[in-house]
Amino acid sequence: MSAHEQVQAQTYREEADTFGILQVPDNRYWGAQTQRSLQNFDIGGVTERMPEPLIKAFGVLKRAAAQVNMTYGLDAKIGDAIVKAADEVIEGKLLDHFPLVIWQTGSGTQTNMNVNEVISNRAIELLGGELGSKMPVHPNDHVNMSQSSNDTFPTAMHVAAAIEINQRLIPAITLLRDAIQAKSDEFKDIIKIGRTHLQDATPLTLGQEFSGYAQQLTYGIARVQATLPRLYNLAQGGTAVGTGLNTREGFDIKVAKAIAEITKLPFKTAPNKFEALAAHDAIVESHGSLNVLAVSLMKIANDIRFLGSGPRCGLGELNLPENEPGSSIMPGKVNPTQCEAMTMVCAQVMGNNTTISVAGSNGQFELNVFKPVMIKNMVQSIRLLSDACISFTKNCVVGIAANEKKINAIMNESLMLVTALNPYIGYDNAAKCAKKAHKEGTTLKEAAISLGLLNEDQFKEWVRPELMLGPTKCIQ
Amino acid sequence: MSAHEQVQAQTYREEADTFGILQVPDNRYWGAQTQRSLQNFDIGGVTERMPEPLIKAFGVLKRAAAQVNMTYGLDAKIGDAIVKAADEVIEGKLLDHFPLVIWQTGSGTQTNMNVNEVISNRAIELLGGELGSKMPVHPNDHVNMSQSSNDTFPTAMHVAAAIEINQRLIPAITLLRDAIQAKSDEFKDIIKIGRTHLQDATPLTLGQEFSGYAQQLTYGIARVQATLPRLYNLAQGGTAVGTGLNTREGFDIKVAKAIAEITKLPFKTAPNKFEALAAHDAIVESHGSLNVLAVSLMKIANDIRFLGSGPRCGLGELNLPENEPGSSIMPGKVNPTQCEAMTMVCAQVMGNNTTISVAGSNGQFELNVFKPVMIKNMVQSIRLLSDACISFTKNCVVGIAANEKKINAIMNESLMLVTALNPYIGYDNAAKCAKKAHKEGTTLKEAAISLGLLNEDQFKEWVRPELMLGPTKCIQ
Amino acid sequence: MSAHEQVQAQTYREEADTFGILQVPDNRYWGAQTQRSLQNFDIGGVTERMPEPLIKAFGVLKRAAAQVNMTYGLDAKIGDAIVKAADEVIEGKLLDHFPLVIWQTGSGTQTNMNVNEVISNRAIELLGGELGSKMPVHPNDHVNMSQSSNDTFPTAMHVAAAIEINQRLIPAITLLRDAIQAKSDEFKDIIKIGRTHLQDATPLTLGQEFSGYAQQLTYGIARVQATLPRLYNLAQGGTAVGTGLNTREGFDIKVAKAIAEITKLPFKTAPNKFEALAAHDAIVESHGSLNVLAVSLMKIANDIRFLGSGPRCGLGELNLPENEPGSSIMPGKVNPTQCEAMTMVCAQVMGNNTTISVAGSNGQFELNVFKPVMIKNMVQSIRLLSDACISFTKNCVVGIAANEKKINAIMNESLMLVTALNPYIGYDNAAKCAKKAHKEGTTLKEAAISLGLLNEDQFKEWVRPELMLGPTKCIQ
Amino acid sequence: MSAHEQVQAQTYREEADTFGILQVPDNRYWGAQTQRSLQNFDIGGVTERMPEPLIKAFGVLKRAAAQVNMTYGLDAKIGDAIVKAADEVIEGKLLDHFPLVIWQTGSGTQTNMNVNEVISNRAIELLGGELGSKMPVHPNDHVNMSQSSNDTFPTAMHVAAAIEINQRLIPAITLLRDAIQAKSDEFKDIIKIGRTHLQDATPLTLGQEFSGYAQQLTYGIARVQATLPRLYNLAQGGTAVGTGLNTREGFDIKVAKAIAEITKLPFKTAPNKFEALAAHDAIVESHGSLNVLAVSLMKIANDIRFLGSGPRCGLGELNLPENEPGSSIMPGKVNPTQCEAMTMVCAQVMGNNTTISVAGSNGQFELNVFKPVMIKNMVQSIRLLSDACISFTKNCVVGIAANEKKINAIMNESLMLVTALNPYIGYDNAAKCAKKAHKEGTTLKEAAISLGLLNEDQFKEWVRPELMLGPTKCIQ
Repeated sequence: MSAHEQVQAQTYREEADTFGILQVPDNRYWGAQTQRSLQNFDIGGVTERMPEPLIKAFGVLKRAAAQVNMTYGLDAKIGDAIVKAADEVIEGKLLDHFPLVIWQTGSGTQTNMNVNEVISNRAIELLGGELGSKMPVHPNDHVNMSQSSNDTFPTAMHVAAAIEINQRLIPAITLLRDAIQAKSDEFKDIIKIGRTHLQDATPLTLGQEFSGYAQQLTYGIARVQATLPRLYNLAQGGTAVGTGLNTREGFDIKVAKAIAEITKLPFKTAPNKFEALAAHDAIVESHGSLNVLAVSLMKIANDIRFLGSGPRCGLGELNLPENEPGSSIMPGKVNPTQCEAMTMVCAQVMGNNTTISVAGSNGQFELNVFKPVMIKNMVQSIRLLSDACISFTKNCVVGIAANEKKINAIMNESLMLVTALNPYIGYDNAAKCAKKAHKEGTTLKEAAISLGLLNEDQFKEWVRPELMLGPTKCIQ
Repeated sequence: MSAHEQVQAQTYREEADTFGILQVPDNRYWGAQTQRSLQNFDIGGVTERMPEPLIKAFGVLKRAAAQVNMTYGLDAKIGDAIVKAADEVIEGKLLDHFPLVIWQTGSGTQTNMNVNEVISNRAIELLGGELGSKMPVHPNDHVNMSQSSNDTFPTAMHVAAAIEINQRLIPAITLLRDAIQAKSDEFKDIIKIGRTHLQDATPLTLGQEFSGYAQQLTYGIARVQATLPRLYNLAQGGTAVGTGLNTREGFDIKVAKAIAEITKLPFKTAPNKFEALAAHDAIVESHGSLNVLAVSLMKIANDIRFLGSGPRCGLGELNLPENEPGSSIMPGKVNPTQCEAMTMVCAQVMGNNTTISVAGSNGQFELNVFKPVMIKNMVQSIRLLSDACISFTKNCVVGIAANEKKINAIMNESLMLVTALNPYIGYDNAAKCAKKAHKEGTTLKEAAISLGLLNEDQFKEWVRPELMLGPTKCIQ
Repeated sequence: MSAHEQVQAQTYREEADTFGILQVPDNRYWGAQTQRSLQNFDIGGVTERMPEPLIKAFGVLKRAAAQVNMTYGLDAKIGDAIVKAADEVIEGKLLDHFPLVIWQTGSGTQTNMNVNEVISNRAIELLGGELGSKMPVHPNDHVNMSQSSNDTFPTAMHVAAAIEINQRLIPAITLLRDAIQAKSDEFKDIIKIGRTHLQDATPLTLGQEFSGYAQQLTYGIARVQATLPRLYNLAQGGTAVGTGLNTREGFDIKVAKAIAEITKLPFKTAPNKFEALAAHDAIVESHGSLNVLAVSLMKIANDIRFLGSGPRCGLGELNLPENEPGSSIMPGKVNPTQCEAMTMVCAQVMGNNTTISVAGSNGQFELNVFKPVMIKNMVQSIRLLSDACISFTKNCVVGIAANEKKINAIMNESLMLVTALNPYIGYDNAAKCAKKAHKEGTTLKEAAISLGLLNEDQFKEWVRPELMLGPTKCIQ
Repeated sequence: MSAHEQVQAQTYREEADTFGILQVPDNRYWGAQTQRSLQNFDIGGVTERMPEPLIKAFGVLKRAAAQVNMTYGLDAKIGDAIVKAADEVIEGKLLDHFPLVIWQTGSGTQTNMNVNEVISNRAIELLGGELGSKMPVHPNDHVNMSQSSNDTFPTAMHVAAAIEINQRLIPAITLLRDAIQAKSDEFKDIIKIGRTHLQDATPLTLGQEFSGYAQQLTYGIARVQATLPRLYNLAQGGTAVGTGLNTREGFDIKVAKAIAEITKLPFKTAPNKFEALAAHDAIVESHGSLNVLAVSLMKIANDIRFLGSGPRCGLGELNLPENEPGSSIMPGKVNPTQCEAMTMVCAQVMGNNTTISVAGSNGQFELNVFKPVMIKNMVQSIRLLSDACISFTKNCVVGIAANEKKINAIMNESLMLVTALNPYIGYDNAAKCAKKAHKEGTTLKEAAISLGLLNEDQFKEWVRPELMLGPTKCIQ
């Protein structure tokens, strides 16, 4: 069902824009320009609507603008009503009133007008007026006062992205990082075979292996944060082309300050508004840090599912929690479904990075008109990564158990431990042991003993993986 | 609101799987495995649900399987009830019963079970039984008979993609191509300046320019069709790992035939089922043809908005239809919003191509577990391209008018027409005219006359852009 | 060392273009326009030069054009000299005379002029004239007769790509496919564990597993071939903007025919020259098929290295050939280096696909000016895939041996074989066996016997993986 | 010609590795392992060799390691010889001795051995020994002392990338940024039409427009720098799997310190060596900042070529420097070739970002084996962006001139200036003027006067674009 079809079967009121009169559903606050967009852009259906975080960010912006406009002379009654209506937008109470899809004008003008219309009509209602009358609260003259779609939409993009990153993404990544770090601590004494090129290599602890994952995510958080300074710079005040025509001196600084107060995030006005309208490099940059997270999480989830592969015919070093039936008859068939959801999310984020880069590169003169697709992909990536991290933590990571028996058996079966014999029986004899064991399919110990190079006690004393876990101590 | 939250506030019945009993909303047909997935994969919310075309394709598949299973001994009463329930899935009547998101197990098992559970319960209901009893229609034993998630999900992927391509995409592209071709015919006598490197070049007709766009789309249709042979090959019959264990000899061929009959598309059983489960290269290939369409449409939409730029300070060769207010005061400010929606869609499709390629490259052994993300991106790209083509056709292309006055004025002002004078006044004199005109900002004619090289009548006779529109005729 | 620096330390002659006189190395055939490009585009250095296949394709084109031009009146002495010089270009004898990098004008004009200059000077030399005199063979008037950079460069792109695909890529993919198919035949009786979600699943033969890889490549060849019809359409005859101005009626058809004869490939003239200059969708399409190959090869190479992982602590089902020391002491440390080279190539090709798509989407009006970067990425992908396939075949695939002992041991240890017991001891008892074995770490047989459900002979008779390799035969 | 073929036609000496004896060209310092790689990886030819910056970075690393190893007991004679040979590598004197291509083992082991062999043989030569004798300087025991390919290659990746960014990229971006800023200053008083959605909008100065480009690059530099902290962390000391086995306590810190001293860059040892070997997220991150630069530069170069389009039939606001003949007869046909080279580079970098992301996501367990392809794409992107910025600055930006006459004429012809009349004649009358002018194709002034709403002097006084360049001053 398309967005357009969905608004059938109801009563209507008339709303007008400069193109004429349109029928608008009576139980919706939107006006003529929203309705016109619904009809002209029947693309993708309801799942393609503007994302909630953007709508809420517009609420923040319209509230801040009304506050500042009151200091420049906006009637307080009108201003207060706008503030109240904007608060309802921020709280998500009016989400049904934002039916427009991403695939509209590339400046997002129609969504800015959607917000203006909804806030205006809701404010009118709060003040006892008539919906659609534009009185006493006019969508353009009051709600959009001193603003242009060209500066509001990019402002809302930055506000939405920064809120989502701070409130959703960073806590989720941190949760996962901490869960992995806890596993790293838990597994600190479990010595296992290392694998390079997928081939048996020298040992490390399972805790060390997990510490690498934790480090990837610690860096990941730092990477996201390193991009925030540009995201905190707001376009508001640039109006149509960046000059700030039709706004008031100081408006830009005051709005950014008000937004910072509402959101408790260090937003400030952008040093150059021409850049802020015509390019969305800050979104490309921030999403680049999400792309790195996707790359990191792909590696981590892949490792975990491979280490948990089995139960009999895989590596079997980890037991992953069993969350749902893997097979109706075979016990232990635990499919690593959380890893699978995670890696699919990573593939999506990596593609979204291409979308955002292509979109970002196609700005022209004073305006980039790929704004909606950029913010949609941005908040989708944030949401998916965040939700997937939480799900992965809760339903997988915290329940991972080491299969110590298997880990130990595998490691002791490996031939790379032969390196430990070099100082005792010499390189050439050590090599002989390894080659014999490899050829005959025996253990190293068996080979070494059968070659008469050492006895069982010596093997136990000399071959100690626990001494292979770090650099040689210096005694100087 | 997450998918999980959405099912609150209702009465529940109990459904069971091998892991135990779960509460399921009373007004929903899904069972325990669906419910469990809802709880374990709270990722992305309702907009991230499995796409409708996939659910409907599952309906087709389950209908076909029931038909074939009846020939292998499935009780006709059960079989017929499955067929009826599957038809309701095909018709889209049961969409509310498919709450699962894409971000689940990478085999799509949970959605296959969702389908099995819904069809089983609906069939039970049709037969007067009790929901959740699994009697007389069992989700696994009957609805999933001779099937595995590992072969049903890829089958549904191919069926969904092929139907969407045939029923949605190709008609939409054809509609746009035909509209552009009609414009090409309409504009066949309008001579205009050509532009290479964005710089003035030799003339062509506006019809010729549009014929290039039409050709891109004609090729585009051929490109999509060239990928269909692989998409028509179905995995069904491979069951768990491709061997066809637990199915019956001939089942694969019969199911493919039944699906072909239901859909009127030339599906057949895949020549190799191991490939069909472990790789989804056919999806990567088909989406590659959508990627080319995105590339083509980006070029076309960009050209059209540039040719329509103005009204005074741009190229202004085309007048685009005015669909919504571009500015409250300035007439003629017609923003090329349909071009903008289209180019945003193109950016999305180009990114989806990366997602699908990354996902497709990550199959492992007998199964690729990025199935849901692959089909989601595939059907999204098809839907967006199709809807955008229709919207672009209806709301932009059919209303494009040539600004002949401007086109003619620009062309006649250009200096490249000087080439036509070579045969009459010689290359050196022609170059002198052009250089003088360029330096002094005059027309070529003015320059030539003031240099005493020709008179006005001669200029008109000799400089005729209409003779510069094709190769020199041969008189042999 | 940059391309520019490289031409130091030699004697020079003077060459002129309309901008003036330049010093050109005496031992090079290029002229002023090439020299000017060298100086103005000092980007990337010698490794970034125009690829050889493109230069050779230009040789083909210039030869064909001279042949056809002679039928339209080009002096035979001049024409023959051009043909001879062009043949030397085709044979690769003059590669040192093409110093220009990809990062020049986006129409490739400078490379077209480089070709014109080299062929002109070499033809002059063959005729005993003076280099740089442009007499009797003029680079523009004769070598470039009836041509424009705007149609020659895209023609050379298609010719280069089609030759490379036919002569290099398809044979290489075929070689690999045949080698994999031979392994599939060799391994047809080796029964092994299947793995889905990386977890133990039902068995298949190693031959069946390899047959999936072979199928991927068989499809891959078909995919590449399905894109060729568009690649065989040539732009030649469109000249500057697609109209064919300054060429002769029929020239386009004749040149395409001549190119087809020289190359033995079914080239023909493009049905629409406007599309052929302004869009390079055919390159995007063809490279899309290389992208699918990259996706397929990534999967195949990944599987092979995982199946060959070990020697003790991995899956160890395959023994890969040992081509170089993997470790100085540990025998059996065989790094899957050929798989690694292959998968790196795949990553490159997947990125090249993004580059080509971005470039292809950015055409403007009558010309796409990303031609050099598109053909460079195209021929690089072809070359790398081809060379990697040959190297992978020779140095890896043909030497792969099955580690049958390990394969058999793993499979027999697996619990999934329990499904075979259902008909004899019932589902519930079968499940008890599997659960007991899983819990206690024993084999299924041990568990079943200890539960008193069967004896050893019965187990051997009933549990036969060789009966699990296909669908149930129908006896109807 | 392949890398392998190139070393024909010379005399040979014998070199040995554990696999046996190989013939090595007499005039080359490399040894058996390099030679073996040449033969086993005949992929791509000479243009695909390991990039110079990586080889030089290996020189830095080997010098630093030798210095530190001397503090741990390496014989000073040997150590000093290694230092001298490594210095020659750093200086680029030995580049002919590094013939290996990127498409080798994914750990880069063969290139690490190539470096060890070349430095060992050159050091032997310096000490008067015999090439290939491994005495007195052994490639493994001395040059590779306390090292593994698995930590040296990622260390060299970071060193190469960080040097190239600091010495090549940042100066080049700064050069361009400063040139654009200078133009912004030069153009600060030139008022022009703004364009949003490509449509005429309110005015701004050409200086303001260029200030946006300068801001993009200022941010771009900050973006690159924000990624350096992770790039300065070095893997050295992790040896084979990250534990540091076979190295000495403190070796990692000392080597990083020595590298920092040699390079004057703040390198330090990585806090977690497991991450440093198994993931190259720092490369993905840094390249992400190059991707943003590509996005920015695409926009800037596109704007400039559109603003310079013409000379008669485009926007014509800028005159770009004429660097080469654009057309043999038409003066003023200045193709924006530098913009074209730049935008092609941007497309390449955007694709390289996909390659690096795919490669980075595919690490497994203790090692990522896509190292060579990652660093190759990284240094290629740096080199191309840097060279293109310098070329673009020198050959385009510094020579850009404003076509003030055209800029002024266009702006004054525009209708958007009508907004300035609102306060004087009222909104409705202003709209009438604009509509009349648009319909009749006249200027605003003509329309307003003919409507009797104002006189010429009033128009001049009231319509002043110079007052539309910023927010309204506050007089509070």
